[in-house]
Amino acid sequence: MSKIHGGNIFQFAHEQRIEPYEVIDFSANINPLGPSQRGLSSLEAQLRYISHYPDATNDDVLNAIADTYGMNKHQITVGNGAAELLYAICRLPGYTGAFVPAPGFSEYKEALEASRIAVRDIYYRPREDDNGKPYFEVPYLALETFAAELKGQDGRIIVFLGNPNNPDGTLLDKNHIRTVASMLKDANSLLVIDESFIDFVGNDTLQDNEYSMRSLINEFDNIIVVHSFTKFYAVPGLRIGAAFSNPQIIDQLNKFIPTWSVNTLAQAYTESALNDIEYVKRTKQVLCEEQHYMYNALDAIAGITVYPPSANFILFHIEQEGVTADTINEALKKHNIIVRNCDSYMGLSNQWVRIAIKDHDNNVRLVDTLTEILKV
Amino acid sequence: MSKIHGGNIFQFAHEQRIEPYEVIDFSANINPLGPSQRGLSSLEAQLRYISHYPDATNDDVLNAIADTYGMNKHQITVGNGAAELLYAICRLPGYTGAFVPAPGFSEYKEALEASRIAVRDIYYRPREDDNGKPYFEVPYLALETFAAELKGQDGRIIVFLGNPNNPDGTLLDKNHIRTVASMLKDANSLLVIDESFIDFVGNDTLQDNEYSMRSLINEFDNIIVVHSFTKFYAVPGLRIGAAFSNPQIIDQLNKFIPTWSVNTLAQAYTESALNDIEYVKRTKQVLCEEQHYMYNALDAIAGITVYPPSANFILFHIEQEGVTADTINEALKKHNIIVRNCDSYMGLSNQWVRIAIKDHDNNVRLVDTLTEILKV
Repeated sequence: MSKIHGGNIFQFAHEQRIEPYEVIDFSANINPLGPSQRGLSSLEAQLRYISHYPDATNDDVLNAIADTYGMNKHQITVGNGAAELLYAICRLPGYTGAFVPAPGFSEYKEALEASRIAVRDIYYRPREDDNGKPYFEVPYLALETFAAELKGQDGRIIVFLGNPNNPDGTLLDKNHIRTVASMLKDANSLLVIDESFIDFVGNDTLQDNEYSMRSLINEFDNIIVVHSFTKFYAVPGLRIGAAFSNPQIIDQLNKFIPTWSVNTLAQAYTESALNDIEYVKRTKQVLCEEQHYMYNALDAIAGITVYPPSANFILFHIEQEGVTADTINEALKKHNIIVRNCDSYMGLSNQWVRIAIKDHDNNVRLVDTLTEILKV
Repeated sequence: MSKIHGGNIFQFAHEQRIEPYEVIDFSANINPLGPSQRGLSSLEAQLRYISHYPDATNDDVLNAIADTYGMNKHQITVGNGAAELLYAICRLPGYTGAFVPAPGFSEYKEALEASRIAVRDIYYRPREDDNGKPYFEVPYLALETFAAELKGQDGRIIVFLGNPNNPDGTLLDKNHIRTVASMLKDANSLLVIDESFIDFVGNDTLQDNEYSMRSLINEFDNIIVVHSFTKFYAVPGLRIGAAFSNPQIIDQLNKFIPTWSVNTLAQAYTESALNDIEYVKRTKQVLCEEQHYMYNALDAIAGITVYPPSANFILFHIEQEGVTADTINEALKKHNIIVRNCDSYMGLSNQWVRIAIKDHDNNVRLVDTLTEILKV
């Protein structure tokens, strides 16, 4: 497999001849607090049932998700990570084309190509606001124009958008999204919003997160919101994700998800972690402080343009001549640090770097090292 | 989800108001020894890496599988349980029809229906040999006739066969399979052999198992052998399965399997369990004894016809009037025992029961209770 992703600490450790736990991984965007202890206790208690099949109905974990996010159980399905849900979505019948954000998460394209759906990139453009702050512009107008053209035609499309989008962190605007969803609906088309990182955004409770588009599934029957539990709850090794949509679409998606797709330990961990209110609070608090610290500290380094973060990761562009993401990763190697070279993202290049926001000590270490590397 | 499977001890425990570990589950066919301790130690050591993505290449576990079964790494892929691999197989392009064994594992049909492939049942017929022993007859002739008719036509089909077949335990004959595979090849068609229970069969080492059809992938490029690690290694809660085929088909299958599909704990457990030679030996030995004991003990009970087992499960037919699988399960309830009512299997009815072979004490308990229930 030649797919490129952040976070292969095992390969890095092997090459550096160190133990995997010695790697300081800024390339994968995981909650800096690590897993919920309450979740881990449930996981460990569940080990005694490892010789039994998972509950194929996923009942307990579906109820916990419904309670946490204020949704109806029949509006939810779960899968073996958000990736499995993306693959299932691309198998919904009748779609012949798709748009994916550029830059954007590579699994959208992988999932579409597996379903032989033609893909076009919709480019997010790097801009500057009136105060000189950099941001990425969501191409709402292009999407609306395309949806208008599609109306009355045979073609049906799927539009993927990230909220926040990975790797740039751009958030969607609910009113723009209402317009896009409505125009796509007129063209029998589908809007998929990937909210894998939404729990990191803002300071509201998870349920009342004003940045989430989740509530729009009650207004539009052509929206699916994809959610992940492995980033916020820090268990990408376990695999569990969810999709929110209307019950008809949920039923259709379930046909493409094999029985027992969510393993017993992921079920047990997630159910408990969702109820670990203190952990959620502490995560929000630490992230708020560290997001602030990291953005300001990086922004103060000459030679890079830093995009204001919305979640637990930050994108920056290298302006300094002769320096690339490769140069930086090479220099970071002796500190056992990895960052994400964004050259595999459509629309970006090896002048772009994404870093996760980690705990304070490691954040300081990265800032100091980057300052040293980028010293003129 | 209304799919019917064995092994939902959680629902049973809930209904009976007992703890799940109090259920004596004869409805799911899992190694009676429980998980490999060596595997569990690796799993527990791997918990520290739960906040990291699994190695997306699955390199270590693929190497361990290649070594254990004497295959080339490029002839293998792994997935989130055998079920995910069945779904991936049904997405291979160009197949318009399929045959599945009746009775047979229900996920074949689920996977085919998800790909909108028309399914026909191929009936295994219950027969008696010259000594009066019951067995199921594999419909080789019907398959060959159909393959011959298909040759030169546009249609391409997938034939699923179990080896041993579930729930009856019937093994395939290698020479017959060579003929079927060859005729299917002439019709551009595919043969999928599900060997999820093959490691339980016979007394050879796993690699030299003469009952396996695995080596046929070196003779035919239209055969896929599906394998499971969750039955023999007793971790159905963890989810991991494999497919063996030629490297071209393996590459195609990988397109339908999302990145990180095998979780970190399943990778770690499987790699170590495969190397736990003592555990494999002990499993074979215990199973050999208990298979012998259970077959003879059940065969001695009047009112049921018992089919000789090949793996870790036994099918029997109830001849006694007024007794059904439901009656039996109802009577077993007060002993906290579940067996598998086979009425959801095409070709069988609620006069058929499948039981797993468990440890000696529980086997004796089941035999005694069944003897009591079936007393005239």
